[in-house]
Amino acid sequence: MQSSTSPTPLYLEDLTVGDVFTSESYQLDSDQIIQFASQFDPQPFHLDADAAKDSFFQGLAASGWHTVAITMRLLVQSLTLANGVIGAGAEISWTQPTRPGDTLSVASTILSITPSRSKPDRGIVVVESITSNQRGEAVQKLVSKVVCFRRPV
Amino acid sequence: MQSSTSPTPLYLEDLTVGDVFTSESYQLDSDQIIQFASQFDPQPFHLDADAAKDSFFQGLAASGWHTVAITMRLLVQSLTLANGVIGAGAEISWTQPTRPGDTLSVASTILSITPSRSKPDRGIVVVESITSNQRGEAVQKLVSKVVCFRRPV
Repeated sequence: MQSSTSPTPLYLEDLTVGDVFTSESYQLDSDQIIQFASQFDPQPFHLDADAAKDSFFQGLAASGWHTVAITMRLLVQSLTLANGVIGAGAEISWTQPTRPGDTLSVASTILSITPSRSKPDRGIVVVESITSNQRGEAVQKLVSKVVCFRRPV
Repeated sequence: MQSSTSPTPLYLEDLTVGDVFTSESYQLDSDQIIQFASQFDPQPFHLDADAAKDSFFQGLAASGWHTVAITMRLLVQSLTLANGVIGAGAEISWTQPTRPGDTLSVASTILSITPSRSKPDRGIVVVESITSNQRGEAVQKLVSKVVCFRRPV
């Protein structure tokens, strides 16, 4: 629990290309899938197990935006940047459906670190986050551009 | 309301590059921003207006994943593909913060239509969705690769 409640705040100087940050896990069930979809992605294959059987997904599947939202929750807990995880943009691909009963976890790798030319107190860090299920299968790849601050002098 | 409750299902043949689909609007408030952030992006600038004042965002701002989730809700209602809006991947950039009190709407433009070589019943459609606030300022640009089916023979 200590890692969640009193994380070490990380500054730009603390990161190295190739560093990997591994999250805790997140248990997903049908009720959560249906609740998220009702609010944000109300399509039959995310709302109703019976309707989903005959769909593209051949069974109830989480909205991809639900998977990415869970990924963000796990990322915020595992990559503890000093001023927060602030995204400027992202690329996402969904490699297979997320299902009820899945246990998700995220491994995030620092791909690049680019100091800002105009703002000396910060830089942009590119982070690749692979979200996997309990069988170790990747369900999503997220590459984010994150604003990261230097340690104050 | 008719457009929401009995939309015309669209197949690949019904789409043309340059077609624009305009959504209804969505009213966002502080409670929604805080509720989403509590679940998926628990960082001070998304959770607490006072704490947010001294942050990067200089005031309470919605999680970018909340903005994209709202965008999906508006997209599903406005781009009524016959078998649903099924994304294979996406690129997102957030151009400015989404704030309490914002009214969001989405304009989606068909950028390309590529029939599948291996699966003759479908293709991939690239859709650019610009999410704007009540002042017409873009808050997010989303480019999605969407699976789209041909009309059954």
